[in-house]
Amino acid sequence: MQNQMTNLSLSDFAYHLPITTRWMDNDMYGHVNNVNYYSYFDTVINQFLIEKANFDPVTSEQIGFIVKSNCEYLRPVSYPEKLTGGFKVERIGNSSVDYIVGIFNNEERLSAIGQLRHVFVDRQSQKPMPIRGELLAALKSAM
Amino acid sequence: MQNQMTNLSLSDFAYHLPITTRWMDNDMYGHVNNVNYYSYFDTVINQFLIEKANFDPVTSEQIGFIVKSNCEYLRPVSYPEKLTGGFKVERIGNSSVDYIVGIFNNEERLSAIGQLRHVFVDRQSQKPMPIRGELLAALKSAM
Amino acid sequence: MQNQMTNLSLSDFAYHLPITTRWMDNDMYGHVNNVNYYSYFDTVINQFLIEKANFDPVTSEQIGFIVKSNCEYLRPVSYPEKLTGGFKVERIGNSSVDYIVGIFNNEERLSAIGQLRHVFVDRQSQKPMPIRGELLAALKSAM
Amino acid sequence: MQNQMTNLSLSDFAYHLPITTRWMDNDMYGHVNNVNYYSYFDTVINQFLIEKANFDPVTSEQIGFIVKSNCEYLRPVSYPEKLTGGFKVERIGNSSVDYIVGIFNNEERLSAIGQLRHVFVDRQSQKPMPIRGELLAALKSAM
Repeated sequence: MQNQMTNLSLSDFAYHLPITTRWMDNDMYGHVNNVNYYSYFDTVINQFLIEKANFDPVTSEQIGFIVKSNCEYLRPVSYPEKLTGGFKVERIGNSSVDYIVGIFNNEERLSAIGQLRHVFVDRQSQKPMPIRGELLAALKSAM
Repeated sequence: MQNQMTNLSLSDFAYHLPITTRWMDNDMYGHVNNVNYYSYFDTVINQFLIEKANFDPVTSEQIGFIVKSNCEYLRPVSYPEKLTGGFKVERIGNSSVDYIVGIFNNEERLSAIGQLRHVFVDRQSQKPMPIRGELLAALKSAM
Repeated sequence: MQNQMTNLSLSDFAYHLPITTRWMDNDMYGHVNNVNYYSYFDTVINQFLIEKANFDPVTSEQIGFIVKSNCEYLRPVSYPEKLTGGFKVERIGNSSVDYIVGIFNNEERLSAIGQLRHVFVDRQSQKPMPIRGELLAALKSAM
Repeated sequence: MQNQMTNLSLSDFAYHLPITTRWMDNDMYGHVNNVNYYSYFDTVINQFLIEKANFDPVTSEQIGFIVKSNCEYLRPVSYPEKLTGGFKVERIGNSSVDYIVGIFNNEERLSAIGQLRHVFVDRQSQKPMPIRGELLAALKSAM
């Protein structure tokens, strides 16, 4: 991960989503457990696709599988803090796309920053297929 | 559970909380899994206590343990639907309290209704202790 | 819930399943959170159906939806404790079935006891359909 | 991540832990959701520390915070598949340590491979402190 990623602010992201934490998100040490950030990432990404790319998890011909992910943790947060997810597209390949998702605390300071790669496959054959149409346009708009 | 509980509307509840669903909340059948409703219940209850009863999960002398819970599932919901939790107090005992929590879908129809019992204990001794002061006042206000 | 349920021992259950706890199962108070027990229940029930009733979550014609559930919490447990789930069938109706699931700690003492109702529906129409064949035989064998 | 990591076999890992999947681990696409692998990683790492380094999550003076993590997903798995976690230590610094965790399917083929960094801090001050004593010895034994 490039160092400058940890300096991103919410205004660097094309799409924002409020995230409500849950009691269970906190672990024994009283902070949101490292695992749950990936659940936030997943939710922000899919929400963008649903809202902006007309994606339907149940019926769309193309679905995205996560093939790699990483996260750097900068500042702990705890339930009941209200968070904001920032989303942008880093790279669009033929059938894969790289996302950057930042999780910001209630003072808009970066709590964690993640990168994730989706490979889009045909729902039936589960073979990779080229990103195109509405999906491609939406992803481009978020770079 | 009394039958009339399944007829409750959002206006029957003393406290409301928006709940954002997560991608992972859906199970293989494409609906929010039955387990996750209890996570919503937990979150609504604690949020009420934090906002209205000055409860602090890290420092408050009294903490609440769930000793029983139940849920009736009426209408499936799915991520990315936005939900609302309705909360009210059903009964206040010496050290225990019964809550009713309704989970409403984005058309304000009841998706599931739960009952949960908290026993309040001293954080150090973990022995039950009487509900009093701000906590008692807040619980009474939500009956 | 009948009082005598809280006296059940592992030998009262027709089917047993080891359950490994996870770090994240513990909440801020250092115990397995009340919500996670329902995830154990879900897993024990489906495991029974898969092993004993030839159920396949992806292809079986009939799938089970949970329509109600409850739990009584008796003794807290904490990760990394190893648990055992006990499963039995309490009642078989036309298209619904009631289960009892006990969660036992590593000394075989009951930590929590739950009751859950499955309604079996046709996967396509999602309408209730009678329990029959292998499924009925397996459920009967676990009463 | 180095390419050769995706070629690791279970015998390359110093410590093994069986992992039982849960019904809820599967997402709408019928596979264990990408997020849950991080919960497996967390569990394998803490289990090693508890068993081999005499770590106690409730009382130990030093506790480990995850500061970065990544995962590469190679082969989907689904509940109710039984998995095995493989754990090894990649690098020991002054107060931080890098782990490699592999998740193997029921044919001992690698499903996903992760790297995580723990920084050990003093439980009270939450300041980094040098890794030493039993903890250091256990980590060294798993390189």
